[in-house]
Amino acid sequence: MKKEIGENGITRRDLLSVAGKFAVGLGIAAAGVTSALPSAEAEKINLKQAEVEIPWKYKKIDPDKAAAIAYENWYKNFCAYASASGIIIPLRESVGGPYRSFPLLSVQFGEGGIEGWGTVCGTLLGASVAISLVAEEKAKKKIINDLMNWYSTTLMPVYTPANPKATFKNKTVSESPLCHISVGKWMKAEGVKLGSPERRDRCARLAASVSYQAAVMLNAWADGTYVPSYTGKQSDCGITSQNNCTECHGSNIPASL
Amino acid sequence: MKKEIGENGITRRDLLSVAGKFAVGLGIAAAGVTSALPSAEAEKINLKQAEVEIPWKYKKIDPDKAAAIAYENWYKNFCAYASASGIIIPLRESVGGPYRSFPLLSVQFGEGGIEGWGTVCGTLLGASVAISLVAEEKAKKKIINDLMNWYSTTLMPVYTPANPKATFKNKTVSESPLCHISVGKWMKAEGVKLGSPERRDRCARLAASVSYQAAVMLNAWADGTYVPSYTGKQSDCGITSQNNCTECHGSNIPASL
Repeated sequence: MKKEIGENGITRRDLLSVAGKFAVGLGIAAAGVTSALPSAEAEKINLKQAEVEIPWKYKKIDPDKAAAIAYENWYKNFCAYASASGIIIPLRESVGGPYRSFPLLSVQFGEGGIEGWGTVCGTLLGASVAISLVAEEKAKKKIINDLMNWYSTTLMPVYTPANPKATFKNKTVSESPLCHISVGKWMKAEGVKLGSPERRDRCARLAASVSYQAAVMLNAWADGTYVPSYTGKQSDCGITSQNNCTECHGSNIPASL
Repeated sequence: MKKEIGENGITRRDLLSVAGKFAVGLGIAAAGVTSALPSAEAEKINLKQAEVEIPWKYKKIDPDKAAAIAYENWYKNFCAYASASGIIIPLRESVGGPYRSFPLLSVQFGEGGIEGWGTVCGTLLGASVAISLVAEEKAKKKIINDLMNWYSTTLMPVYTPANPKATFKNKTVSESPLCHISVGKWMKAEGVKLGSPERRDRCARLAASVSYQAAVMLNAWADGTYVPSYTGKQSDCGITSQNNCTECHGSNIPASL
């Protein structure tokens, strides 16, 4: 295996060998809820209705329009709703049909990395749902993968609204698709708190940036010119796609006092 | 402020003060994409169609049925699809209507913490979408919050299928809603790889466990007997809901060699 060195000199193989020392090894025999329902009955239920088919028809979207919608909608229902709406609302107009009955509010829970838990950035969750409605499975996987990588490696936010609701000075690279890391780094750079108008506007611009980028990628895919850019395959780390091990492993985070 | 001590003796306030030393402070002036579209036009687009209203009607679900469906469906489209289907498929039968046109496959991208990136566990993503379709906004937030906490603190998987596709010995507590941490700890305890039948069945059982728990909570909510249990509010940490700072900060993870 090719040995790749992390920013701080820790290799991924080193991390794997160290990981064992810290893993929680609760060797408790399987017990708990046992299904009263045999698998055959579950199968019967599943087969009663065919699954709703996606993707739906796509018509190219003006990325500026996607971004402007997402920016405004952040102030209505926050990040996940905002980035999804930047793609889905134009399609409700240009294509109509199933996009008009899709409940955009079903992704609102993604705010703050799922109801404030700081996991995946809600803008990525919302955009991923929208991409899933639009692109066939193989393309969807590649586009979402590229979006996750683009988000993690780009100086953000890239979008500046025509009429910003707040102004600020800093952009940051998250090096992670996680809300907590992305927002935390930017707040530290800007020196503002979570509830500040600046932080709120930063996240609104991020939703706009992600909708913009998703529209650009989907348009290229629709034109047949889309070339996937992200090649990360880290299955030897027990994780499929993420390259940024040292973002949580090593000395990059506050580790001890 | 009440000073709470983490498992390894690091306080949350300590972490905040240390965080600054490691934060990436890229002080680059705002530039990049500027919208050509004024906010007023975005507003006009948004107002053309009223948002699709949720929640939809709920009829209580047999948790065993939810779990059995989720378990089987993991082997079709993996974790996020599976846990969502455990709730939505029974509602397609008992309520019908909008549940029948909701594209369950729109959450498939959640597999492996979003296309293998190891962020939020896909079972939580899928179940959160289902809960969002069912419960009004205030209840939805509380139920998802409780589900995230229950997932992070419970010896998992709790569900054992009637006819398991693989067998294994270990259960683990993730102490985190993140796929990478949850799967990684269990794999280390069991001593198996990501592609093993045991790991796959562990995740299928996890999807079933999450659907089961979501059904239990939604049923209690429908009965008017639901009492939210999670009280975490860590906004002083720059994150709203998560209590488990020391899972990534401190000596719990492989930090150095």
